[in-house]
Amino acid sequence: MNDNALEKTPLTLLGLGAMGTALARTWLDAGHPLTVWNRGPGRAEPLAALGARVAGSVTEAVAASGLVVLCLLDDASVDETLDGVDPTGKDLVNLTTSTPALARSRAAWAHGRGARFMDGGIMAVPPMIGVPASGGYIFYSGSRALFDAHRDTLAVPAGTSYVGEDAGSAALHDVALLSAMTGMFGGVSHAFALVRKEDIEPAAFARLLADWLVAMVPSVHLMASQLADGDYTRGVVSNLAMQVAGSPTLLRTAEEQGVSTELLTPYLSLMERRLAQGHGHEGTTGVVDLLAR
Amino acid sequence: MNDNALEKTPLTLLGLGAMGTALARTWLDAGHPLTVWNRGPGRAEPLAALGARVAGSVTEAVAASGLVVLCLLDDASVDETLDGVDPTGKDLVNLTTSTPALARSRAAWAHGRGARFMDGGIMAVPPMIGVPASGGYIFYSGSRALFDAHRDTLAVPAGTSYVGEDAGSAALHDVALLSAMTGMFGGVSHAFALVRKEDIEPAAFARLLADWLVAMVPSVHLMASQLADGDYTRGVVSNLAMQVAGSPTLLRTAEEQGVSTELLTPYLSLMERRLAQGHGHEGTTGVVDLLAR
Repeated sequence: MNDNALEKTPLTLLGLGAMGTALARTWLDAGHPLTVWNRGPGRAEPLAALGARVAGSVTEAVAASGLVVLCLLDDASVDETLDGVDPTGKDLVNLTTSTPALARSRAAWAHGRGARFMDGGIMAVPPMIGVPASGGYIFYSGSRALFDAHRDTLAVPAGTSYVGEDAGSAALHDVALLSAMTGMFGGVSHAFALVRKEDIEPAAFARLLADWLVAMVPSVHLMASQLADGDYTRGVVSNLAMQVAGSPTLLRTAEEQGVSTELLTPYLSLMERRLAQGHGHEGTTGVVDLLAR
Repeated sequence: MNDNALEKTPLTLLGLGAMGTALARTWLDAGHPLTVWNRGPGRAEPLAALGARVAGSVTEAVAASGLVVLCLLDDASVDETLDGVDPTGKDLVNLTTSTPALARSRAAWAHGRGARFMDGGIMAVPPMIGVPASGGYIFYSGSRALFDAHRDTLAVPAGTSYVGEDAGSAALHDVALLSAMTGMFGGVSHAFALVRKEDIEPAAFARLLADWLVAMVPSVHLMASQLADGDYTRGVVSNLAMQVAGSPTLLRTAEEQGVSTELLTPYLSLMERRLAQGHGHEGTTGVVDLLAR
């Protein structure tokens, strides 16, 4: 431990998968005294060589530091790992992927035992951790006091975005962004399938596709302002009726090219339902209303 | 007609809807002698006041210029409008939305009658026409000689992107990009639905969402290179098995938030099918293979 390390907040990390290991390296590199624990063997040794203290049990690991970060395989692993642990007085930060409801119930569990709690959603893959230029960052929500006390330490592996006292908010932001990406990748997959049998160079097509998608992304700001005040007609240039009129061309082209329409039809059907309800003069934002059960 | 106009290529425009009218204004502004025709009444008069010649029939309109641009309501309108017209020696450019197969059959029809033909796909809404900073542009495909002869005239209303001698290529590019956008808007709608009932400001969420989507768009270049050589493992960080393992969190969160999963499940199911076929070590690009029938 060098002199500098004496000034850095000590912390414990539970879980040394690919992501946990990437996190651990950045804290060690930055001079934080780090205690690590992993359920399976073999993952801690390379980190011990870099200066990590390896705990023999979860209890020992949690006892070692006031700040305890979890980055485990899944929610079940979190439950098993924390079972029987006394978190009194600890600052717990769970970076294991979870749902908003689970994050809220963990926060309640922690508060009931005298611990502060934050949940996190990592918007990065392991190679982006510790690489500020990668743009990777982590959503945090839950105890604001915990975030303020440890923001410098939490900022070591990736950028931080605190999204509210509701412990479920980080997971909700995480899942919402991943879900939007899933939709985009579905659309992109359909687009590549359409052009695939033609004499069209994939790289040239990808450049056109990328420019087009980036140009269309700002429409989310108009959607947000429409959702904020409920006026789905404001700023609309191509209205729902016009967009539904264009759907057959998308579907016929898919059929001509021998491409399944399964990724297109759910959204086109929602537009049609909304049109049938008399909203043809609005934009497409009303689809959001149809999704709520 | 001013002196400058004498140097500009005369052309005819069939169809004066919102898009046709926007196109017409830019050619008139740029000093092109323009003959216009519209099926219904009332649309030509404002353009006549700006210097357009108004033809009394399609035959008269087509006879007036060597370059004839069509921008009609739909494919059926194109068939009706061209029925009985002699296109011999003309340069025909159809900007009416159509499918690749229809564009190809129109090209064959034109070639068989001694005309040159290009199909176009307009990647813009009318307010973007004549506004270079809007980023709007038009895909063209078909006769390269026609494109070369008229590229300056065609560049007046919007940027031009020539995508090959196959007359169907412009429509295919157009539909592929719109289809990808449809997927993205589906994902975005789901994301907004997820956060809607929470105390999350739509504008702040939209900023996070926009940044995230823009950051994810470049993955289309990796997909293109994988499709080009068939190696779906190259450059993969988060493989298909890991992504499928994350699907339940997306689905459970939607259920917790009372949001239908109809926009998510088609793509998640395709990932699962691909995983079941033994491709867990690849990325998600193999979904494109499953879409081809």
